[in-house]
Amino acid sequence: MLHVSRIADLRAACDAARAESLRVGLVPTMGFLHAGHRSLMRSAAAATDFVVVTIFVNPLQFGANEDLDPYPRYLAGDLDACAAEGVDCVFTPSPAEMYPRPPITSVHVEGLTAELCGAVRPTHFDGVTTVVAKLFAITGPCRAFFGRKDAQQLAVVTRMADDLNLPVEVVGCPIVREADGVAMSSRNAYLDRPDREAARVLSHALRRAVDAIVAGERDAKRVAHIVCATVGTEPRVELEYAEVRDAHELTPMVALEGSVLIALAARVGSTRLIDNVLVEVDGSKVSADLGVADLNAPGGSPCTAR
Amino acid sequence: MLHVSRIADLRAACDAARAESLRVGLVPTMGFLHAGHRSLMRSAAAATDFVVVTIFVNPLQFGANEDLDPYPRYLAGDLDACAAEGVDCVFTPSPAEMYPRPPITSVHVEGLTAELCGAVRPTHFDGVTTVVAKLFAITGPCRAFFGRKDAQQLAVVTRMADDLNLPVEVVGCPIVREADGVAMSSRNAYLDRPDREAARVLSHALRRAVDAIVAGERDAKRVAHIVCATVGTEPRVELEYAEVRDAHELTPMVALEGSVLIALAARVGSTRLIDNVLVEVDGSKVSADLGVADLNAPGGSPCTAR
Repeated sequence: MLHVSRIADLRAACDAARAESLRVGLVPTMGFLHAGHRSLMRSAAAATDFVVVTIFVNPLQFGANEDLDPYPRYLAGDLDACAAEGVDCVFTPSPAEMYPRPPITSVHVEGLTAELCGAVRPTHFDGVTTVVAKLFAITGPCRAFFGRKDAQQLAVVTRMADDLNLPVEVVGCPIVREADGVAMSSRNAYLDRPDREAARVLSHALRRAVDAIVAGERDAKRVAHIVCATVGTEPRVELEYAEVRDAHELTPMVALEGSVLIALAARVGSTRLIDNVLVEVDGSKVSADLGVADLNAPGGSPCTAR
Repeated sequence: MLHVSRIADLRAACDAARAESLRVGLVPTMGFLHAGHRSLMRSAAAATDFVVVTIFVNPLQFGANEDLDPYPRYLAGDLDACAAEGVDCVFTPSPAEMYPRPPITSVHVEGLTAELCGAVRPTHFDGVTTVVAKLFAITGPCRAFFGRKDAQQLAVVTRMADDLNLPVEVVGCPIVREADGVAMSSRNAYLDRPDREAARVLSHALRRAVDAIVAGERDAKRVAHIVCATVGTEPRVELEYAEVRDAHELTPMVALEGSVLIALAARVGSTRLIDNVLVEVDGSKVSADLGVADLNAPGGSPCTAR
């Protein structure tokens, strides 16, 4: 496995791969890799020939009062995880390598970034789209793999690639969940035991919303209310939003039909967590992507409800 | 010469060229091609193997009260000019092809776009960087060629490519001038005969500023004053700005040293024209890129002062 920290070295490695007619796949991460990231690497390995994992805690996507400094880092473990997944190249640039001078160029996606997480993190998505545009330009991937846990990020990056005609297919991959349903997140490391237990209410609330849709509920407000009410039963958790949106345009829905995203953000103690579920509603037919269990955990298996 | 109007066709043509190990060169234009554009094509042909000229009057870079509709168009003549210059591929997309839905993604370069032309055209450069980013993504050029007449555009696009790590070298090419010194511009077509004669004062003013620098003047304010005073002698011309700036950062200068851009914008009748000169000051040594004469005109020759 190649491990590079210089942009020029990553570019050269990807150019060399392409020169051998290998398709380059990109998995951009902020490190502290968990089973969710590993599932992205597996999707990349299945669909491309030269898998690049980037590990970069991007300062640009953190707000002034957010957790840039304490964000968990564990490079040795990350490199082991990448090697175990057969990754071809890991890129671990420094902030100075990515931003040798103050970055005055930014990529902005209007509208899609204004609400949901963008409402409380107003500069976050510009930081994401800008660094992803850079990583795309450096790596030149034919496919790039993003987790569906960051559903808004996936919608924003997909739209950026489409609007800017970037020659890359943006692939969304299922949320990976712990055995108790909690979505894998590097930020779960912040949670003490009581908060970690309380966090279960988030996926539980989403599952109750899906149960209601499966049982025939089609009113977006009532579905959102189920999420709010369920989360409200857990005093350690403060809901920031629970929204029912069109999965691609992120526009509010009234009656559920088509690709429906039920998304939430909440504070568990001082830790901000997000989760969501993607529901396909086709008349009376409902299918929900509730995510998959940790593939490495004993008895791990897909948990898609139909 | 290939002529395509679909993004997919241009992408396929460039992919095919690269598959043959040809280097792709890009000349983005808004059409109504003149000797300035043709000099870009020649620079591209000299430095790359597969020259793509794009012709697209980009609505995104025109303000609400600007000349999008009357902007001169002459496709047949443009195709003849491209063929005469040995261009490999001409791309003439429709607005709907470039923007199949309202473009919500934009590329913004902070600071560099705020002053000079950006002060009176506040949305212009976002339109430029966004469409250029798209054309780069579609074409995948190793080099892209821009005229130095649009000096601020060149600085902005260069910085965008650098900040976003785009794998393209942005090449600035000398201004091409009419025999009487007026910079080539598609917008010169708007000028009636008295205005066309009055427009000569712009390049004349720049040349007087260069003469002063060659004679030892190093004070930016006095150099700017020479331009203002000279343009002021022509009642048909209303100066919008005359600025002496660092050529790369576009920051104001006090004492002239290094790469100096003397740039101006003016209304000649109702037509807005821009012009500039790039001066290299190295102590007592001064060289100025005053542009080149039309290569096709009789007796045309470089007119660089040293």
